Amino acid sequence: MDKIPYPITHSLEPENQESPIHFLNKWKTPIEYFYIRNHFQYPTLTNYNLWLKIHGTKSFILHYNDLLSMPSISIEAPLECSGNKRAKFSPKVYGEQWKDGALSQGVWKGVPLAYLLQQTEISPLAKEVVFKGADFGTRTDMEGTFHFKRSLPIEKALHPHTIVAYEFNNKPLTFKHGYPFRLIVPNWYGMASVKWLQKIEVINDVFIGPFQTVDYVYYPYKDSDVGSEPVTIIHVNSTIQSPLEYSILDTGTHVIKGIAWSGMGEIIKVEVSTDNGSTWNEAILKNKNSEYAWSKWSFTWDAKDKGEYTILSRATDETGRVQPNNARWNRKGYGYNAVSKVHVKVE
Amino acid sequence: MDKIPYPITHSLEPENQESPIHFLNKWKTPIEYFYIRNHFQYPTLTNYNLWLKIHGTKSFILHYNDLLSMPSISIEAPLECSGNKRAKFSPKVYGEQWKDGALSQGVWKGVPLAYLLQQTEISPLAKEVVFKGADFGTRTDMEGTFHFKRSLPIEKALHPHTIVAYEFNNKPLTFKHGYPFRLIVPNWYGMASVKWLQKIEVINDVFIGPFQTVDYVYYPYKDSDVGSEPVTIIHVNSTIQSPLEYSILDTGTHVIKGIAWSGMGEIIKVEVSTDNGSTWNEAILKNKNSEYAWSKWSFTWDAKDKGEYTILSRATDETGRVQPNNARWNRKGYGYNAVSKVHVKVE
Repeated sequence: MDKIPYPITHSLEPENQESPIHFLNKWKTPIEYFYIRNHFQYPTLTNYNLWLKIHGTKSFILHYNDLLSMPSISIEAPLECSGNKRAKFSPKVYGEQWKDGALSQGVWKGVPLAYLLQQTEISPLAKEVVFKGADFGTRTDMEGTFHFKRSLPIEKALHPHTIVAYEFNNKPLTFKHGYPFRLIVPNWYGMASVKWLQKIEVINDVFIGPFQTVDYVYYPYKDSDVGSEPVTIIHVNSTIQSPLEYSILDTGTHVIKGIAWSGMGEIIKVEVSTDNGSTWNEAILKNKNSEYAWSKWSFTWDAKDKGEYTILSRATDETGRVQPNNARWNRKGYGYNAVSKVHVKVE
Repeated sequence: MDKIPYPITHSLEPENQESPIHFLNKWKTPIEYFYIRNHFQYPTLTNYNLWLKIHGTKSFILHYNDLLSMPSISIEAPLECSGNKRAKFSPKVYGEQWKDGALSQGVWKGVPLAYLLQQTEISPLAKEVVFKGADFGTRTDMEGTFHFKRSLPIEKALHPHTIVAYEFNNKPLTFKHGYPFRLIVPNWYGMASVKWLQKIEVINDVFIGPFQTVDYVYYPYKDSDVGSEPVTIIHVNSTIQSPLEYSILDTGTHVIKGIAWSGMGEIIKVEVSTDNGSTWNEAILKNKNSEYAWSKWSFTWDAKDKGEYTILSRATDETGRVQPNNARWNRKGYGYNAVSKVHVKVE
């Protein structure tokens, strides 16, 4: 009997679907389970969209086939929506109520952005690079029509692993995930990895746009913009895939398992508590083959006594960042990374 | 571009999937979106399971084909898991964290159970009828192997609309929903509508079994069984399908809409509040064609001012039952029916 998990539908206009991450075990998320996060309706593509415009000191246009014949690299990396786990913030925040599954992973193949930018003869004054997607539409908070546009600091744009990707898991990008090309920015939250890429522009100043300077900003206060900071690098984080929240277990042995990841280096430790943080045990980390991939971890728990338990997981990355007990609340609900928590009853 | 909602996966062993009810508009839930609630692995069916055993003063066995040739009726009715909306209880309760979608509806065709029971020559001492499903397995809370078995009081069993169903929405029942036959008990929570029905037995006493007298019981206290009551009739209830929880809206007109249902007669009124219950407006009820079907309702809201709003819906049935402000908490989390609530931000 065929029993399969499904993506979790958050909205259809635009389409937003979460990965059923608790039920997935592979390193590479199958494309049908890769989370989908859109700001607008899907763009209508024509042959025109097979051309990528690159503007700098020198400007040029590349066809999809040109890109395919250029030097390429493959990178296994997760994408995480900066709104992942938004539903866990307290007080609650408005916006898509992502749980744990606005996170997926796979192998991206494409041309290093640096290779393309070098051909524009980068000015020493270059400060940022702006990426324009083919998707556009209106917003609730301001008048007008906007394309999805984001920028990167020139240094991040020139990082050898920032790529213009055209393949995912050894197949051409699917339309929903940005065909013909999308940016892939390892270590940054997903909003940086612009889909349906149309135009790349080197600029000498700082880009301002609603998806750069209104959205994807940490606002620490509800009614003031004081202390705001842009959303950039993925926070150290972990997710308990099993057991499931509020599940009922037998007494006996249970494997607590999950994944952990960070935008600042490898995960060096995952700790698990079965007593809501009074004591901690080190989980076993699985070997992994690639720099950016999430870590898989497990801890075997002998649940001898009946009762209610709060299970926690806490990841540490190689820069020493540790998941906090409480996530830093922010008005738009980005970057949630508190210690992960699952309640179970043993009976 | 194909954009479809998916069932929400709660577990795969056994399979429990919730209907994406916020994204469905039809009176009849398509079978692929009908919620799935299992206690055990799917049973392995053989030709043996095409025979239905009926035990009473007289006993007999019917083949699937016999049943198909008997007098039948068709009933449009919802099924609602008694754990529907369990995730909304506060304090939280253990068990499947169903949100709004452990509820689906369609047209069931089958033989009135009374027609079958009359052929057993019902004793005046008959008190209950016991229904045994082909599904079985172990439990976390007691030793042993158990079939899913439930009973009905003889009066409910003899109700002309309690049927042994073999069709759903004009097609044979699918395997996951109880093929070859399942009981359908309109107005009662879904646990009464036993799937993969194998045996029907008239008894002169009260049936005791874990799915009758341990589960599907309202326990008002966490640590005591005092005041417990069996789960039977569906509570008056409503669900706001649109707007979605914690969504962000434009100023202007929005249609607030949803469904309402009750196990005790038709819905006669649905009220909507956009100010967290300070003022209420009567929603428009759509005409419906059948006795048991849920009601569809809508209310057009002119959201003139920016700000945060708490939208409520409150249904009243023809017996005068009204959704309460707070659901009656119970240890296993059944029958949640508090006034429905959605938070939105208008900007």
